[in-house]
Amino acid sequence: MDFGFDARTEELRERLLGFMDECVYPAEDAFEAQAAESGWAAPPLLEDLKGEARSRGLWNLFLPGEHGAGLSNLQYAPLAEIMGRSPMIAPAATNCAAPDTGNMEVLAQFGNEWQRKEWLEPLLRGEIRSAFAMTEPEVASSDATNISLSIVRDGGEYVINGRKWFATGAMNPNCAIFIVMGKTDPEAASHRQQSMVLVPRDTPGLDVRRGMRLFGYTDSDHGGHAEIVFTDVRVPVENLIGEEGGGFAIAQARLGPGRIHHCMRLIGMAERAVELMCTRTLARTAFGRPIAQQGVVQDWIAESRVRIEQLRLLVLKTAWLMDTVGNRGAHTEIQAIKIATPREVEWILDKAIQAHGAGGVSQDFPLAALWAGARSLRLADGPDEVHKRSLAYRELKKYMGDRS
Amino acid sequence: MDFGFDARTEELRERLLGFMDECVYPAEDAFEAQAAESGWAAPPLLEDLKGEARSRGLWNLFLPGEHGAGLSNLQYAPLAEIMGRSPMIAPAATNCAAPDTGNMEVLAQFGNEWQRKEWLEPLLRGEIRSAFAMTEPEVASSDATNISLSIVRDGGEYVINGRKWFATGAMNPNCAIFIVMGKTDPEAASHRQQSMVLVPRDTPGLDVRRGMRLFGYTDSDHGGHAEIVFTDVRVPVENLIGEEGGGFAIAQARLGPGRIHHCMRLIGMAERAVELMCTRTLARTAFGRPIAQQGVVQDWIAESRVRIEQLRLLVLKTAWLMDTVGNRGAHTEIQAIKIATPREVEWILDKAIQAHGAGGVSQDFPLAALWAGARSLRLADGPDEVHKRSLAYRELKKYMGDRS
Amino acid sequence: MDFGFDARTEELRERLLGFMDECVYPAEDAFEAQAAESGWAAPPLLEDLKGEARSRGLWNLFLPGEHGAGLSNLQYAPLAEIMGRSPMIAPAATNCAAPDTGNMEVLAQFGNEWQRKEWLEPLLRGEIRSAFAMTEPEVASSDATNISLSIVRDGGEYVINGRKWFATGAMNPNCAIFIVMGKTDPEAASHRQQSMVLVPRDTPGLDVRRGMRLFGYTDSDHGGHAEIVFTDVRVPVENLIGEEGGGFAIAQARLGPGRIHHCMRLIGMAERAVELMCTRTLARTAFGRPIAQQGVVQDWIAESRVRIEQLRLLVLKTAWLMDTVGNRGAHTEIQAIKIATPREVEWILDKAIQAHGAGGVSQDFPLAALWAGARSLRLADGPDEVHKRSLAYRELKKYMGDRS
Amino acid sequence: MDFGFDARTEELRERLLGFMDECVYPAEDAFEAQAAESGWAAPPLLEDLKGEARSRGLWNLFLPGEHGAGLSNLQYAPLAEIMGRSPMIAPAATNCAAPDTGNMEVLAQFGNEWQRKEWLEPLLRGEIRSAFAMTEPEVASSDATNISLSIVRDGGEYVINGRKWFATGAMNPNCAIFIVMGKTDPEAASHRQQSMVLVPRDTPGLDVRRGMRLFGYTDSDHGGHAEIVFTDVRVPVENLIGEEGGGFAIAQARLGPGRIHHCMRLIGMAERAVELMCTRTLARTAFGRPIAQQGVVQDWIAESRVRIEQLRLLVLKTAWLMDTVGNRGAHTEIQAIKIATPREVEWILDKAIQAHGAGGVSQDFPLAALWAGARSLRLADGPDEVHKRSLAYRELKKYMGDRS
Repeated sequence: MDFGFDARTEELRERLLGFMDECVYPAEDAFEAQAAESGWAAPPLLEDLKGEARSRGLWNLFLPGEHGAGLSNLQYAPLAEIMGRSPMIAPAATNCAAPDTGNMEVLAQFGNEWQRKEWLEPLLRGEIRSAFAMTEPEVASSDATNISLSIVRDGGEYVINGRKWFATGAMNPNCAIFIVMGKTDPEAASHRQQSMVLVPRDTPGLDVRRGMRLFGYTDSDHGGHAEIVFTDVRVPVENLIGEEGGGFAIAQARLGPGRIHHCMRLIGMAERAVELMCTRTLARTAFGRPIAQQGVVQDWIAESRVRIEQLRLLVLKTAWLMDTVGNRGAHTEIQAIKIATPREVEWILDKAIQAHGAGGVSQDFPLAALWAGARSLRLADGPDEVHKRSLAYRELKKYMGDRS
Repeated sequence: MDFGFDARTEELRERLLGFMDECVYPAEDAFEAQAAESGWAAPPLLEDLKGEARSRGLWNLFLPGEHGAGLSNLQYAPLAEIMGRSPMIAPAATNCAAPDTGNMEVLAQFGNEWQRKEWLEPLLRGEIRSAFAMTEPEVASSDATNISLSIVRDGGEYVINGRKWFATGAMNPNCAIFIVMGKTDPEAASHRQQSMVLVPRDTPGLDVRRGMRLFGYTDSDHGGHAEIVFTDVRVPVENLIGEEGGGFAIAQARLGPGRIHHCMRLIGMAERAVELMCTRTLARTAFGRPIAQQGVVQDWIAESRVRIEQLRLLVLKTAWLMDTVGNRGAHTEIQAIKIATPREVEWILDKAIQAHGAGGVSQDFPLAALWAGARSLRLADGPDEVHKRSLAYRELKKYMGDRS
Repeated sequence: MDFGFDARTEELRERLLGFMDECVYPAEDAFEAQAAESGWAAPPLLEDLKGEARSRGLWNLFLPGEHGAGLSNLQYAPLAEIMGRSPMIAPAATNCAAPDTGNMEVLAQFGNEWQRKEWLEPLLRGEIRSAFAMTEPEVASSDATNISLSIVRDGGEYVINGRKWFATGAMNPNCAIFIVMGKTDPEAASHRQQSMVLVPRDTPGLDVRRGMRLFGYTDSDHGGHAEIVFTDVRVPVENLIGEEGGGFAIAQARLGPGRIHHCMRLIGMAERAVELMCTRTLARTAFGRPIAQQGVVQDWIAESRVRIEQLRLLVLKTAWLMDTVGNRGAHTEIQAIKIATPREVEWILDKAIQAHGAGGVSQDFPLAALWAGARSLRLADGPDEVHKRSLAYRELKKYMGDRS
Repeated sequence: MDFGFDARTEELRERLLGFMDECVYPAEDAFEAQAAESGWAAPPLLEDLKGEARSRGLWNLFLPGEHGAGLSNLQYAPLAEIMGRSPMIAPAATNCAAPDTGNMEVLAQFGNEWQRKEWLEPLLRGEIRSAFAMTEPEVASSDATNISLSIVRDGGEYVINGRKWFATGAMNPNCAIFIVMGKTDPEAASHRQQSMVLVPRDTPGLDVRRGMRLFGYTDSDHGGHAEIVFTDVRVPVENLIGEEGGGFAIAQARLGPGRIHHCMRLIGMAERAVELMCTRTLARTAFGRPIAQQGVVQDWIAESRVRIEQLRLLVLKTAWLMDTVGNRGAHTEIQAIKIATPREVEWILDKAIQAHGAGGVSQDFPLAALWAGARSLRLADGPDEVHKRSLAYRELKKYMGDRS
């Protein structure tokens, strides 16, 4: 057992920390100002930052194998944490932003040669963005068997009808391709009914209708969260990813690394929050002494540190398990980090906000927006409660044999 | 001891419930659609609803004494709860919306005849709106002695310089008058340094600069939360409310009833959330049964009921104490409701959101916006922690005599 | 609505407070010392205190109607709170201790004339104690239909076989009579299977086997919590309380007032804990100042006050509802106080313990023993979770009509 | 980074697991029965188990260096967890029980040759037990400068006067030697005032007065928690450990490994609790289905797993830091595990108790006693709040430079 990072990780951490200090943090104010003007498109500054990141060798770090930087989950995880300290900029600048990351993984792992050439390559070059359309407004999508968008084969095409929402990134006009999950065979066994197809944005019948807000935020800087209506949308059968009925399996494969990324970025946000909480409370005085001297504030700071340390270790161990025994062997841990991380980071952000006074809930500090992101992740890819039930069932199963 | 409402309260509750059912709830969708178009002004629908409320005798119910409906705090409290079920519409439609309520109370109680005629009367008629400017960006305003906006007498005028933020309602172009708290005598005893003055919106040097957001929300439908810069703003000395050095006392007097109103409205929001949580989870199915049959969801529902019942009783008792022994005798309770209500209602809203899935955080349900309001109230007029410390000090004081 | 106590309540509160100050608190140390010596019997001091209480007119206050003091639930509740401040002594000294209180209520309401003469009268005079045997070790007794002790009629007798545990008070050799719940008709509808019978302690076949401990405490001063084995125990049919199949209904009727008593006593314990927390932290110094000046300790004190005020109001309202609309109309509230009170008081006791340092968990302060009592009440007459589910179901039911 | 155990650890884990299965678990009932009869002495069974453990090479595993098994903290930690699954037996049977472990560490590290021969050797052989006397009843001992027991040099002797309590193990008649912390120089700098001396049990003037209870438990099986009065107790100056004024430094050095042991044992208890919670709720039925199928119970089980995984990683990392950078470099983590572990394990035990119904709080399951142990650890070697404040201060210090 060894809790130190390996040399490659250390080297990349250094390089990334340099990029953050020299390029990302100094750009935050200007980025936000541009975002307020740029509608659903990314702020223009982003392209400069992408160029810079690429030239520094900080590009596609998330992607294992030949198409990407070739890092293991355990190597990439601490880099994702660092990016999470400036989550509006750093992931996008390094081409490591969701949902493109998961979509590129899917294409790299399950896409055919044509799909990889057509869509994976421009994504890897950072020329286009992509979206992933799974959740539906009309059903409890946490139960994937509820998903009802219909994908019907008609000769050499699939015909798609249905409605999706919370397709992150899809409001961005530069988002060129959607991976869409739907039902190809309602009669098949429950885990073989779904398939995934690629649908280009300009396909007739596809209507990107509106951006869903998260606690008032449009998240326009990273393309929002779209509601999309599909009316007789036709794509060639070559757009099927993998095989018919394989949608559920692909979705599962897509989950693991994404969870690591999300959770490590959240931990980065939490570290940023602790820093802000400390500097703000040291700088402000109430009732005759710095707010940082209030016992309750110190309790928040200590609690934040205690919680962050535990979360980080759990996520890193999960990454290690994924690298060594695979997603299936890390099933419990992958659920555990999804349960623990958003809620604990939400708690930390809440306290940092409280320590800031009224300013904390406003646009003058990043905390409220980060909070909304963390809170929303308690629902993303299934509410925590669904994961807890499944985790408990696996725990109980260990003892069920005793009774037979 | 008697937990039943008196006859007048029951009669007004019936009348108000009728107004909610017949006019307010049916208008919610249209109101929200108008709000999205109307910038910082109130949606046009509001004027119709005001007319209707007035004709039904549901007008200025909050205001005791001759100028208003003459209800006691205990009589008005359950009405505020009902209004809270549709907090964007009902309070404004009945001319019972903050911050006008508190401002009207101040003018009724401390204003001179001219001030009442000039400002209280149009406010009572619902013709103009008002704002209250106390919190400052540069200091921890929870410690009122930190407040630094300067009010300097110069002949027959006061000259005002400084900066305020989170002046709720001030972005509304119809908001015609500001009550501004500032320092008239930095040399006086700490509670005699502040004064309040009336500053009309169109006074030269007053710059309503921008709306502060609360978790992404502009709250434009009720006039936002403005940052205001005062540069050599001059008002006649007649605009002083009460006496020089009386600002702190007026602020204290203003607090009590406002707390009751805020807390009862929050309880109304919580009741609405429970209703939404029940109907949504009864209507949606996951994993083979309605979500309402999940044990964890039932736990949330039961907890919500248990918490609401306790909160309501505490707020009602506080109102009763204010009516019978005055603000000073109700000091502990006025702090207790401020500590308990926002956070418990926040908890309930969080669970209702979670029970809604992704939709819960979006604009398609009122829950996320209500949450942002409840959360922000944990900071409004001082973070909870300040009130807890003060309350604890009073508790400890009971036992300090033992040691002398 | 009126939050003041009536004149009779005020008068009795004064009288009881005097008894506490003059007789109960001064006796605590001696009482505890005697308890350590007296085995399962009550400390001898108790008889003196009973005589004193009786002579002061503080006797059987819990019992409504002609047999007792004739107080309403709302009048008795604040007296139970005062008794709860010294829960080992005050309830027993005033003949208001569980489980006798519930048992006397049952006999007064459902007993026949012979039963009342034989058992109620000596109980009312405080000459004997009694126990209530319901919970069974072999089944989840929260589901009353699981209860399996068998009561079979054989001519003029009932024959009883089975096992009970947690029969509070039964280890006391002066505990002369047990009310035993069991199954008389396993074929009847689920709520008509159970009956209650009176079983004198000296009946052959009845074996009071051992005292169950609660977190290490025997509770010997109030007769412990016995496991009892019934082997062919025979009692005359006259010992049936009410009618065959009526056991469930009697159990329900017994619950309401008992909940009020338990919860109010818990609130009294909480008040005592706050007092101890304040005096201890004012008197002890760490790191250069009294512990009472630590922000976190002040937070605990404030929280305790905020929670106690809410709990008390909820319990008082429940008592008022029971008096005005009956147990059935107060169903939600009776469950709500059972859910909220033990856990909140447990929280307060935990903080008071923590504020005491190591001494807090020991026998030198009453806090740890009070904690064990409060914690155990989260399980007594059904774990909280059972009550929450039932409460939630009633809440959901309001909205089920909407779907038909 | 590598989350797997090394070969030696794996081998010892296997061996220890075999011992648990073959010797410890089967002995639990008999051990408890003997403990109820053996007063303050250890149950006779213990000697057999010690012989067995020793013959299996499971002896003094806790002790690094030549005197013990020579394991690192990281190697020993997972073994301590396994022992924690049966905390009354396994640590004592393997001569790895507190407070002997810490005392042996002190003697090995700071003792002179004579002290090691006289006291360390019989301790290592398991022939005698020892106690550590630090906490005092009259002061808030969390602030070590408060400690007031006086140690005055008089010629070739030290004369000791004062009072200690919560000296764990000291009630055991076989506890032959006490390490006593006291003040040798009240005029020295605050961290140089204290010294530690060895006091044999039979020294005149030493009065082991009574056992302190923890939530009703005497903990007699492991020697209780004694209050000890020192009246003119004289020991030769050779009994000083290390140097005069070195007491504080020794206490600090003693802390780190002990925290690891305590926390890992707590994690073992938590694992045992989860096992009991699962098997009990699978075996019991209420309202028509196994309790394990209740959503709320599943939530507890999942939460327990999520929390345990985080805690274990944090403690293991702390052990690794202590091995690689020393106690000082692991300061934050050593505090963090002390803050997090007892309270999270307390939470898990509470839920396991609740899932057991009334039996859970009784002597029929180990849960309530384990709970009392975990709860008391929130106070042992300083309440959590003291550690949090210190941890927060270190966190804040990182940012204090920014202001100068």
